[in-house]
Amino acid sequence: MEYPSKLIERAVEEISRLPGIGKKTALRLALHLLKEPVSASEALGQSIVELRKQIKYCKKCMNIADSDVCGICASHRREESTICVVEDTRDVLAIENTSQYNGLYHVLGGVISPIEGVGPDELNIEQLIERIKSSNGTVAEIIFALSPTMEGDTTAFYLTKQLKDFNIKISTIARGIPIGGELEYADEITLGRSIASRTAYNQE
Amino acid sequence: MEYPSKLIERAVEEISRLPGIGKKTALRLALHLLKEPVSASEALGQSIVELRKQIKYCKKCMNIADSDVCGICASHRREESTICVVEDTRDVLAIENTSQYNGLYHVLGGVISPIEGVGPDELNIEQLIERIKSSNGTVAEIIFALSPTMEGDTTAFYLTKQLKDFNIKISTIARGIPIGGELEYADEITLGRSIASRTAYNQE
Repeated sequence: MEYPSKLIERAVEEISRLPGIGKKTALRLALHLLKEPVSASEALGQSIVELRKQIKYCKKCMNIADSDVCGICASHRREESTICVVEDTRDVLAIENTSQYNGLYHVLGGVISPIEGVGPDELNIEQLIERIKSSNGTVAEIIFALSPTMEGDTTAFYLTKQLKDFNIKISTIARGIPIGGELEYADEITLGRSIASRTAYNQE
Repeated sequence: MEYPSKLIERAVEEISRLPGIGKKTALRLALHLLKEPVSASEALGQSIVELRKQIKYCKKCMNIADSDVCGICASHRREESTICVVEDTRDVLAIENTSQYNGLYHVLGGVISPIEGVGPDELNIEQLIERIKSSNGTVAEIIFALSPTMEGDTTAFYLTKQLKDFNIKISTIARGIPIGGELEYADEITLGRSIASRTAYNQE
């Protein structure tokens, strides 16, 4: 497509590099910005550049943070004995929203994926091992909260091998039929696993 | 949702101001940028700010342009007798892609919409009238290529009234069954209009 201006062509080019945004959407967004005041574009542009340049990562859990240690790791109310291993910040946010977990996190920054060229060295696995070593036995349980995909399972398997020398309980979040999900629409693997790992019926 | 960092909160806030992008998508995009080099975020941020600050509009057709007069208006190969009136740049791109039109354009910058507070004064209607006046009779036909919505129809109606004192043919793009569209799935209004405005069958 031949754009009427180099400026708009460049903006469309850059915006459409973002995942899930094609050229048509990028053009729609660029034209939207042109209708808004200059301050709106400046605020957007600056927030993007400053985010990337000034972002810090918690030196304990490797989550995004404003200071050297994030709010969760700095809190005295969290149980230090449990570390929940997740892929990225979004998983931390999702679990925090449930209000069901009071331990700490460790953000891997991705999962092992040979297809996308992500090996164990690209992830914050070394930091997890160091963290457990330097905790002097405080850490009693590691919970894997990884996606039930090939990559998630591979990562969990790799981590289990790395953690085998520590005297730590390793668990994974429960797989099964989602609450509100209808049994007949569940896939075979999920349904099969939910029967195999059935739990005691709570009569309360 | 409580974000782990003010920087990410601000970026999510700004990105989610864009139309069609919610907080979850904005967070996904922000986290994507964090995985890319600093240069990627800089290029994106700069392109957005420069687009808004440096953009020019063709003083003839009001389309986005790099110079005072756009490529189409400056071309000697285009027929100056016909002006196609469109809502925005995307419509110009769409019509240019068909290679079926060799006249000039006039970009209104929107359509009349009382609900969104867009009146005739917010659009480039005055410029169209001036353009026709100063053309000394060169302009022989105005084609409305506006969306078949309430707003598009209102705009066409308003323009027709403004243009009635000029000796100019006014036409509108054909409405009917889309090529490849199945008759039984067409809505009643489109089908009804396609029968009412039937054309002579071309036997070639």
